[in-house]
Amino acid sequence: MTTPAATEHRSAAILSIGDELTLGQKLDTNARWLSQQLVDLGISIIEHVTVPDDLDAHAAALARLAPRCDLIISSGGLGPTADDLTRQALAIAARDTLVHDADGERQIRAWFAARARSLAPINLTQARRPSRGSLLENKHGTAPGLFSTIESASHRCDVFCLPGPPREMMPMFDASVRPALRPPEGRVIHTRVLHSVGLGESDLAQRLGPLMDRSNVPLIGTTASGGIVSIRIRYEGEAPRERARALVDAAAEKVMQLAGDYVFADGHDSLASVVLRTLKERGQSIAVVESCTGGTLAEELTAIPGSSASMLGGWITYSNQMKQTQVGVPTELFAQGAPGAVSREVARAMARGGRDRSGASIALSITGIAGPDGGTPTKPVGTVWISLAHASGSDTRRFSMAGDRASIRAWSCTAALAMAWQHLAGRSHPLLRQLEAHAE
Amino acid sequence: MTTPAATEHRSAAILSIGDELTLGQKLDTNARWLSQQLVDLGISIIEHVTVPDDLDAHAAALARLAPRCDLIISSGGLGPTADDLTRQALAIAARDTLVHDADGERQIRAWFAARARSLAPINLTQARRPSRGSLLENKHGTAPGLFSTIESASHRCDVFCLPGPPREMMPMFDASVRPALRPPEGRVIHTRVLHSVGLGESDLAQRLGPLMDRSNVPLIGTTASGGIVSIRIRYEGEAPRERARALVDAAAEKVMQLAGDYVFADGHDSLASVVLRTLKERGQSIAVVESCTGGTLAEELTAIPGSSASMLGGWITYSNQMKQTQVGVPTELFAQGAPGAVSREVARAMARGGRDRSGASIALSITGIAGPDGGTPTKPVGTVWISLAHASGSDTRRFSMAGDRASIRAWSCTAALAMAWQHLAGRSHPLLRQLEAHAE
Repeated sequence: MTTPAATEHRSAAILSIGDELTLGQKLDTNARWLSQQLVDLGISIIEHVTVPDDLDAHAAALARLAPRCDLIISSGGLGPTADDLTRQALAIAARDTLVHDADGERQIRAWFAARARSLAPINLTQARRPSRGSLLENKHGTAPGLFSTIESASHRCDVFCLPGPPREMMPMFDASVRPALRPPEGRVIHTRVLHSVGLGESDLAQRLGPLMDRSNVPLIGTTASGGIVSIRIRYEGEAPRERARALVDAAAEKVMQLAGDYVFADGHDSLASVVLRTLKERGQSIAVVESCTGGTLAEELTAIPGSSASMLGGWITYSNQMKQTQVGVPTELFAQGAPGAVSREVARAMARGGRDRSGASIALSITGIAGPDGGTPTKPVGTVWISLAHASGSDTRRFSMAGDRASIRAWSCTAALAMAWQHLAGRSHPLLRQLEAHAE
Repeated sequence: MTTPAATEHRSAAILSIGDELTLGQKLDTNARWLSQQLVDLGISIIEHVTVPDDLDAHAAALARLAPRCDLIISSGGLGPTADDLTRQALAIAARDTLVHDADGERQIRAWFAARARSLAPINLTQARRPSRGSLLENKHGTAPGLFSTIESASHRCDVFCLPGPPREMMPMFDASVRPALRPPEGRVIHTRVLHSVGLGESDLAQRLGPLMDRSNVPLIGTTASGGIVSIRIRYEGEAPRERARALVDAAAEKVMQLAGDYVFADGHDSLASVVLRTLKERGQSIAVVESCTGGTLAEELTAIPGSSASMLGGWITYSNQMKQTQVGVPTELFAQGAPGAVSREVARAMARGGRDRSGASIALSITGIAGPDGGTPTKPVGTVWISLAHASGSDTRRFSMAGDRASIRAWSCTAALAMAWQHLAGRSHPLLRQLEAHAE
């Protein structure tokens, strides 16, 4: 299994394969990850394409994309079963035949032997490769990857076929694809992303004005997602890398002058990571008490490596009894005629109880109606109370979130983290305008 | 804004638009959701395509796909800013010009007025549409959708352009696209998916044998994802709907005879939903105590509507102190030379403490090292202890998960839920073979 030589890779297409993707049974996360890796290297992505487990469609996609870019990276279709057709599709597109690779067979046998698993005869189909191609070693599964080229008289496209499961695909990319890539020498792509919360996308665009003209270098664009509006600044051209960086930084500076009050992070930071880092820098800590979000907020905080430095933990007080027994919400708040589980009083008591019992510097609580059932005329689905308890008191707010159960839960976490961020950053602008815009 | 007449829609392509997608900054969830809706109606998906915010690439994708299918549904690029180019791309591909839509302007103005938000002049660009097309009302945002057709002498393709944010896209699909669709009359697609845990994909394929031949009707395929191997059974053809269903059911019956011991669910059920439903049917309940997964397991359980019937809640005992004070893990287990936080003893004490304090019928605990830091030679990253406490004792197991932090957390939840399922279902086959296969 050799690492192939490569020409210069200026542009790439990402190909995902599988009925489970085109049938909508599974979300494609590989295309995003692969794009990130290539873009970081300065390689442009011309297209993502997903095709079903259909030999003709698969081979046709390869044949169509190959003349238009220098690199195709596919994932999926390398499994041992009859619906895995990547080997054949690559052979057709490369006008090649499949041969058995003895070294590949040895590696597959070794993989099974090391795990004391019996080898199924069909696993040996995974040792087949195009005669002019090569196999890529899989250290995390049975399916070797494939490399080959699709060539015309004037153009060569390198094709790397990786397995579908991310835990096999990602290490194989790092081990066998990344070292073989030749990013363009003279061409520079430099991007920065600023993330804002509290302004709608069009309000933000109005503030930025002519900065967003499509003829500008660098280009500035915005994207709204789950309550966050991200501002992308992107230079692509022939300038020296230092100059590209300076142009992007200057544009970011202008953005900050116009909308900096709402910008909470730069780059890969999220609201959760900014909150955690700020707490850590101050030697402070956080705990959470969740009802309708049921762990989503804790999950978001603990997803960040090193979060244990300031995240102590929390409670999922999903039942009223858990609210009472575990964080000390007064029983009378649940009585007939009392405010009830979704109320300012209960949200505040949850946050205060969580702060007291954990000893955290701040605590966030969320209680609401995520639906689809459980709404009432006075507390419709989407009614969410969020409270932040801190050393000098608490801040408790009502939100009316639109959307389905998953959206309501996700936006509730964003609103809670935005409240924590504003508290920690001492921001005083009118709050969460964008989140509240969904408050009907 | 009229609902357009449509021809028969046998096949469709899904187009996603945005630099944030091709740059890998954002995950495309729309393509999956849209595919699900169309497949449920019996419409075949020929391809998913994602292009950047580039007018030429966008118009070229429309022009390429239109002759090959009856329907294109796009999402993204309808925002008010200069990088939103869907209107122009559609006009180019349909060989049409853009006009201002007075009714659209009224709706946009009404949307802003109802929210007491000021209208930015650029918002009015969202009232532009191809002259032979129409706008689709957006009840959840400012961007109307677009409908138009791309026609040749012999073929017509209907194109619906929806906004990118899922909370706007999904209701617009339901209100304006779904009623306009004409699924093929004579053509039937019928699918079933069985989900299994505990067998590797190739072991499962070996059990199924010739059932998986690509020439079979219905087709049977497998997909592995995060510890679950799903078996897809799919009929597509001209048979009457009842006959298609019978063929698929007969194939599912054969699959159950060969591998039923490992099958935990059918259709859209997940391990979490099966566990919750079983508990509810028995009048039982569950609580969770999470360390390294930090809320991921609770999130997975509470994501299911109606989960409060059997999910009481839980604890995120992220710090050792929370483990001691909140669920009563004995302090001495953390002393020098004692087993420590990642151990059989602590996992068992967490599950027992959580069960006792919540009064739940069963409790699951997870404690481990999700990485990237914190590993030691005897407890490397990926070491995870999981315990299930129940009325007659507890079941505690060690797993060695591969992959990154997110994978380790996700697989830990799958393993925990699989333990609960096996306990509730009384299954006795060798456990979690597939999960343990990642145990090196």
